[in-house]
Amino acid sequence: MIGKLNHVAIAVADLPAAVAQYRDLMGADVSEPLDLPEHGVTTVFVRLPNTTIELLHPLGENSPIAKFLQRNPGGGMHHVCYEVEDIHAAMKRMQSEGVRVLSAEPKIGAHGKPVIFLHPKEMNGVLVELEQA
Amino acid sequence: MIGKLNHVAIAVADLPAAVAQYRDLMGADVSEPLDLPEHGVTTVFVRLPNTTIELLHPLGENSPIAKFLQRNPGGGMHHVCYEVEDIHAAMKRMQSEGVRVLSAEPKIGAHGKPVIFLHPKEMNGVLVELEQA
Repeated sequence: MIGKLNHVAIAVADLPAAVAQYRDLMGADVSEPLDLPEHGVTTVFVRLPNTTIELLHPLGENSPIAKFLQRNPGGGMHHVCYEVEDIHAAMKRMQSEGVRVLSAEPKIGAHGKPVIFLHPKEMNGVLVELEQA
Repeated sequence: MIGKLNHVAIAVADLPAAVAQYRDLMGADVSEPLDLPEHGVTTVFVRLPNTTIELLHPLGENSPIAKFLQRNPGGGMHHVCYEVEDIHAAMKRMQSEGVRVLSAEPKIGAHGKPVIFLHPKEMNGVLVELEQA
């Protein structure tokens, strides 16, 4: 069911510093910051040859990343995203084994594609996003 | 400097359950468990088309994963590993910008290749492994 690792998301407290670190110190291909107000984040894509690291920083009120940074002031790994072919089938399959999905229906994610998030409690403590590729 | 994302490591409290979840529920290609006593872990490789998820479970006394699971009983994301061409050059470069390296010299990692670990404090709260590819 799952295909590629689409991205690993890292919540960062200081976005310009994190961008400088990945771009200048580690020599990675780093995008311009992209504001996604509907998701409460500013995102920077670190494009590695085989996958993407997404640096997430809070944007606006009630950002989920702001809450994460309250618990983890220095930042940290926020979630992983696996690709699936059919988001509705994936949702049913995970729910059939008792994995909680954090929305009643798939939502449109940061890449304009349908996504769901799976509860970390059933996923080895990891917030897992599934994205229809 | 950094190349591919070599793997994402997830510490798991119940290895057989995590294996069953990735293999049977999510349909991924999952290896047999591999004991690595010198690293204090049992590892299972979840081979995705573009990278690997490593499920880590404590093995023996003083396992670093046991300490992680004490703090995070349900498991969680443990580290990410980026590939580099020259581990000594990478070590010098990171140290030159004040990033602490968790060993005085590169060590041989779980894949038989030289690795270093970078302190999460300087890496946005993320434990980062660099592996000479």
